[in-house]
Amino acid sequence: MDMDIYLEEKRKLINEELAKYLPKDDSILSQSMRYSALAPGKRIRAILAIASCSCMGGRIETVLPAACAIEFIHTFSLIHDDLPCMDDDDLRRGLPTNHKKFGQATAVLAADALFALAFEVISSDKNIPARSGNRVILELSRAAGCLGMAKGQSLDMLSEGKKINITDLFEIHGRKTGDLIIASCRTGAVLAGAGEKEISVLSDYAAHLGMAFQIKDDILDVEGTTEEIGKPRGSDIERKKAAFPSILGLEESKKMLSKELGTALVCLRGFDEKAEPLRALLNYISGRKK
Amino acid sequence: MDMDIYLEEKRKLINEELAKYLPKDDSILSQSMRYSALAPGKRIRAILAIASCSCMGGRIETVLPAACAIEFIHTFSLIHDDLPCMDDDDLRRGLPTNHKKFGQATAVLAADALFALAFEVISSDKNIPARSGNRVILELSRAAGCLGMAKGQSLDMLSEGKKINITDLFEIHGRKTGDLIIASCRTGAVLAGAGEKEISVLSDYAAHLGMAFQIKDDILDVEGTTEEIGKPRGSDIERKKAAFPSILGLEESKKMLSKELGTALVCLRGFDEKAEPLRALLNYISGRKK
Repeated sequence: MDMDIYLEEKRKLINEELAKYLPKDDSILSQSMRYSALAPGKRIRAILAIASCSCMGGRIETVLPAACAIEFIHTFSLIHDDLPCMDDDDLRRGLPTNHKKFGQATAVLAADALFALAFEVISSDKNIPARSGNRVILELSRAAGCLGMAKGQSLDMLSEGKKINITDLFEIHGRKTGDLIIASCRTGAVLAGAGEKEISVLSDYAAHLGMAFQIKDDILDVEGTTEEIGKPRGSDIERKKAAFPSILGLEESKKMLSKELGTALVCLRGFDEKAEPLRALLNYISGRKK
Repeated sequence: MDMDIYLEEKRKLINEELAKYLPKDDSILSQSMRYSALAPGKRIRAILAIASCSCMGGRIETVLPAACAIEFIHTFSLIHDDLPCMDDDDLRRGLPTNHKKFGQATAVLAADALFALAFEVISSDKNIPARSGNRVILELSRAAGCLGMAKGQSLDMLSEGKKINITDLFEIHGRKTGDLIIASCRTGAVLAGAGEKEISVLSDYAAHLGMAFQIKDDILDVEGTTEEIGKPRGSDIERKKAAFPSILGLEESKKMLSKELGTALVCLRGFDEKAEPLRALLNYISGRKK
């Protein structure tokens, strides 16, 4: 399959849907929400939800609202992580960060409102059966909460400037990036009506893909250009953030990346050709330049 | 009925339940979540959910998890509102604000995690029918989002130092405080299995009670002591925040308070003695010193 076309198609669809859910008025809050939510993102999490749903025989219409909700949650976390009291980043997706553009107060509130919107989108959708809706909300709220994304970011902040080992780094990235990626695949599977065993296999796939994604991110921070990655190269190193290359070295990090991708691929061995996009996403991750 | 005993009993119950849902570990993030969520609050929103549920013939066990979720959402909003980039408050509920105690990064994340926890609590509860759970999540996410609480706080920030009129002030407080109070009553009614007409009447009651609550807050900011209200008197005035006394004067504000309470009471005229706590709450609001 041509993954570039697949990704391009799905991104276009997701972006159109995101725009439908966002508020249309001219208030600063709404402008700020649209600014970050519609900035050119990779939409990997939404695409994972869609691909996981298709892989289990589900239709794209079934999962699209939840896929948008996931992107809103992801964007919410990016806005908060970029704040001066957190990672203090000026650039995101090639644009000034939300607080640079709208000020900190609006950035905090726009992120909060995007987080709320995620749950509104799922709970208001008449096509999602109530039980599945509840389950998806449970998956996503857990992934975002104090055992998931918030914990990962907290650990990441606490580790700044400290010497940490590879186990700690796995924990940080597992929570900060991995849990929402896992929840994305689980969401797709749940909405396709998959059983617990299949959901669990997809979670394993997602855990390894998520780690690979983060290792690649860390490698790009060393090797990419600002233009490609949408933020200054070396910004993690400069801030003494925990990263794979600084702990393992660049070559070992690349080996670790291959290993994670390989393990993720093995997870899918029991799946038929409907899992092709999930398989192709692994190549995309290893090859991506941003 | 003896409202003091009623409130005391319900608060105790709510506080015990809140503690059950909160993470128990010693991480900074968990400490920070517990610090704010278990600080001595009035628990008005949770009590409104409980009283609305009882009023419609529902059992307290049915609504208690959602009542806790509402308090988590309320606490989330207080932590973010207190941040230096927002209202920059040092005291809350008689204690140092979350960011004063734990730093801004942890405060932002602890609030986010409490917001996530609210949805986790409802969506994971096996005793809440899936359809009711979805409906409650819709009510609460909408109340917290870009047309509700986040919008109110944004308008409030934008109005600082500006001359605004009474219509603007109603809009600010309606969104910032009113919407979650309305959603609290709606949540109680939904979980009791009330019909749309009853839910709508309780929404009207809640809207007027919410406005009365805010007018009283503004009056206390002028007349209360720091000890009573848990924050310095006159802090709103000092920050040139929009408030009823500064627009209407103190006497007119008190008249407006009575009017709102009276209208709220009239909303309940079709209800039987099970609405007694909702009626008594109006007296409590007018008499409170904090």
